[in-house]
Amino acid sequence: MPSPQVAVIIGAGDATGGAIARRFAREGLTLCVTRRQQAALEPLTDEIRKAGGVVHPFGCDAREEAQMAELFDHIERDIGEIAVVVFNIGANVRFSITETTTRVYRKVWEMAAMSGFLTGREAARVMLPRGRGTIIFTGATASLRGSSGFSAFSGAKFALRALAQSMARELGPQGIHVAHPIIDGAIDTDFIRDNFPERYALKDQDGILNPEHIAEQYWQLHCQPRDSWTHELDLRPWLETF
Amino acid sequence: MPSPQVAVIIGAGDATGGAIARRFAREGLTLCVTRRQQAALEPLTDEIRKAGGVVHPFGCDAREEAQMAELFDHIERDIGEIAVVVFNIGANVRFSITETTTRVYRKVWEMAAMSGFLTGREAARVMLPRGRGTIIFTGATASLRGSSGFSAFSGAKFALRALAQSMARELGPQGIHVAHPIIDGAIDTDFIRDNFPERYALKDQDGILNPEHIAEQYWQLHCQPRDSWTHELDLRPWLETF
Amino acid sequence: MPSPQVAVIIGAGDATGGAIARRFAREGLTLCVTRRQQAALEPLTDEIRKAGGVVHPFGCDAREEAQMAELFDHIERDIGEIAVVVFNIGANVRFSITETTTRVYRKVWEMAAMSGFLTGREAARVMLPRGRGTIIFTGATASLRGSSGFSAFSGAKFALRALAQSMARELGPQGIHVAHPIIDGAIDTDFIRDNFPERYALKDQDGILNPEHIAEQYWQLHCQPRDSWTHELDLRPWLETF
Amino acid sequence: MPSPQVAVIIGAGDATGGAIARRFAREGLTLCVTRRQQAALEPLTDEIRKAGGVVHPFGCDAREEAQMAELFDHIERDIGEIAVVVFNIGANVRFSITETTTRVYRKVWEMAAMSGFLTGREAARVMLPRGRGTIIFTGATASLRGSSGFSAFSGAKFALRALAQSMARELGPQGIHVAHPIIDGAIDTDFIRDNFPERYALKDQDGILNPEHIAEQYWQLHCQPRDSWTHELDLRPWLETF
Repeated sequence: MPSPQVAVIIGAGDATGGAIARRFAREGLTLCVTRRQQAALEPLTDEIRKAGGVVHPFGCDAREEAQMAELFDHIERDIGEIAVVVFNIGANVRFSITETTTRVYRKVWEMAAMSGFLTGREAARVMLPRGRGTIIFTGATASLRGSSGFSAFSGAKFALRALAQSMARELGPQGIHVAHPIIDGAIDTDFIRDNFPERYALKDQDGILNPEHIAEQYWQLHCQPRDSWTHELDLRPWLETF
Repeated sequence: MPSPQVAVIIGAGDATGGAIARRFAREGLTLCVTRRQQAALEPLTDEIRKAGGVVHPFGCDAREEAQMAELFDHIERDIGEIAVVVFNIGANVRFSITETTTRVYRKVWEMAAMSGFLTGREAARVMLPRGRGTIIFTGATASLRGSSGFSAFSGAKFALRALAQSMARELGPQGIHVAHPIIDGAIDTDFIRDNFPERYALKDQDGILNPEHIAEQYWQLHCQPRDSWTHELDLRPWLETF
Repeated sequence: MPSPQVAVIIGAGDATGGAIARRFAREGLTLCVTRRQQAALEPLTDEIRKAGGVVHPFGCDAREEAQMAELFDHIERDIGEIAVVVFNIGANVRFSITETTTRVYRKVWEMAAMSGFLTGREAARVMLPRGRGTIIFTGATASLRGSSGFSAFSGAKFALRALAQSMARELGPQGIHVAHPIIDGAIDTDFIRDNFPERYALKDQDGILNPEHIAEQYWQLHCQPRDSWTHELDLRPWLETF
Repeated sequence: MPSPQVAVIIGAGDATGGAIARRFAREGLTLCVTRRQQAALEPLTDEIRKAGGVVHPFGCDAREEAQMAELFDHIERDIGEIAVVVFNIGANVRFSITETTTRVYRKVWEMAAMSGFLTGREAARVMLPRGRGTIIFTGATASLRGSSGFSAFSGAKFALRALAQSMARELGPQGIHVAHPIIDGAIDTDFIRDNFPERYALKDQDGILNPEHIAEQYWQLHCQPRDSWTHELDLRPWLETF
């Protein structure tokens, strides 16, 4: 019996991570989803299971090397072959430079860059011997531009982009597809609904990103044959200025 | 009876343009394909028709404003609603700067940029009143980087990228999706087979781009819902350095 | 007696070109300045001469290959060794895509890109045998970004940037310094004063670029030793958003 | 008596930092130079003093918030007005992704990005009330491109570039000039001489960067009038491919 194909979603706590998990589950992959508190994953795992999918929730702090190494080892040993890994942790904060504390600067980097490094490295470790696999890092507007007030968030997202580029150049010729989609716009999430109501009101005219549509792109990236890989693409609502 | 949905491929003379035409025909769109000599389109139109598709070949010099205006008018009047336009004319040449003649510099620009401008403008003209449509301009490695010997080709491809950006920013909020996929690698064409045999030999290990896979991406770009549009993405074989 | 060192300014018709000419003349270079109508150069040549400089005005259409070849031949034969060439012709226009005529699209490219190509090629031709020289192409905000309404202007400026990159990569290792400063802001010119009075009012607080300060940068680029060359830099008023 | 104008060089341990310190001292600024071990600064301070300059050496770990805050407070209180701050700490390492330890990834970021953040924030804090000052962050090839093996170093340099952009956009309109020169090539240092002898042999033909010439650019950046500020420029030997 062949080993189940596994999709690992690091940071399945928000609407996007959840939609990506459901999309890959729909294709028959076994899902391994993480967030810091395992209990918070229950609604997502219920949903996937009701739809007939297989899913394993993990409480895991992606900043912790030992936890991440153990997670990847455990999945490969007990669940199946990791075919695709999605890193989806952000930490969008905005402070003027003099109001940015060392604690914030460090924490944002740990969440959005250091965790991405651990995710990417552990994924590479298990994929390299097989010479195949897909690793996707979620980028944002701040990945390309250091706007006023975003020294911490842009710093982390720039670092994550450097990681994605560096890994793509090293691992591509070894059969591993590394991609960095850049989400350039507000996503239909509780966070946007609660904090940016005017923005959220654009939903009626498709002015904010539907997580299902983001997930569709991730799935298509994973499906690309190796003669035609995309490393970077942008995703943006039609009404978004850029 | 609803108007047929039309896909227009400007520059369907090479493997890529042909594959894109076949891909869109397979989805039921009526194809209008152009190259300078209409007769040369016969193999492509035969193939599409045998597969059950509808296709109209046009001999058309895309550098000629009057011909392009007439082409778009004729299609809209007599064939159907233009849903998607693909501009696919390149002119890859390499000369040291002192060996680059004015004739070459101008001709490459006319083929790869001026023709793109006319294509884009005429497409915008017919799409704007409807507030929908997709316009795709084919980019290349030279769209992002002016390498030694590529003053003419890069000049034209940079200009085409400027056009794609400018049109995306103007037309996006009016409902028209403008995309600029960047093909960064050799494509499986007669030209590569005959002129770069070592490169072509990589085909066995998926080291050159399959036109069918490029075409698939173009189709997916056209299908993106307007809350999640991609403006730019790269496509590259796994073995390609970048 | 050593040959005089010559600075050629193609497009010395505006405040920037004039300031650059004066700056290089102050350092003892012999100036050759061009614009389409030679008579219009009189105020500039008067000013340079009064300050003790040596200057030769030329009426020259930089889009015309024969005129440009003859200009460079004439200077080298009869005036001195061309040490530095500055290309400074712009053509800033803004039209929506459907209002952009073929005539405008072509003319803007001829002025801002084709002329730059002829300037760069003729400069390379005379400098290559000596293995030294500086070639500077003036860039603009539109060199980096295709904004809405700028398909023609950005197209030309993108093309000029491609030329500068391609020439830098080919000619750098042959001893020729190719630079592309990007002026990102309004310059203190009659054009800005007459057409953008609110912008011009920022002059009191240094909110628009002083042509003398731009000229200083061009001089410094020319002076850079060959172990430390700059290819691209931006110049922007402190108040300018970017 | 007016307060002395002070230049602070964070990371004056290498050839570049030393040359920058000497260059600013030559213009009459009072120098405050740091590296981790104060004793190691002796040769530099001796040299500056022999040339008639004023210099204060500081042993300071730029990753330590308290030390950095105290350093800036002390200088402003007891030495003079900080006119310019240069951040010049790098951490160039290369490892394949699977060989990159968490310790290395974190340490490189702390040295090249976190320290830059503390430097920039403390500089902003003392400069903002005066509405003037220059802050320069030293960039590298890895600031623009995540090459294979450089996930840690590029990650840190990308983050530093994000910081420079974000601070430039916030602080520029408040009178503070933030610049990010990118050194794209080997510098004439002991490190290059000892580890890359073939590279170092290019020194005879100006194939590696002279620290004095880098320092000259930093001085010129500091001197730019506020209507014509450069945020980013590259510096590269003529023989360097890019």
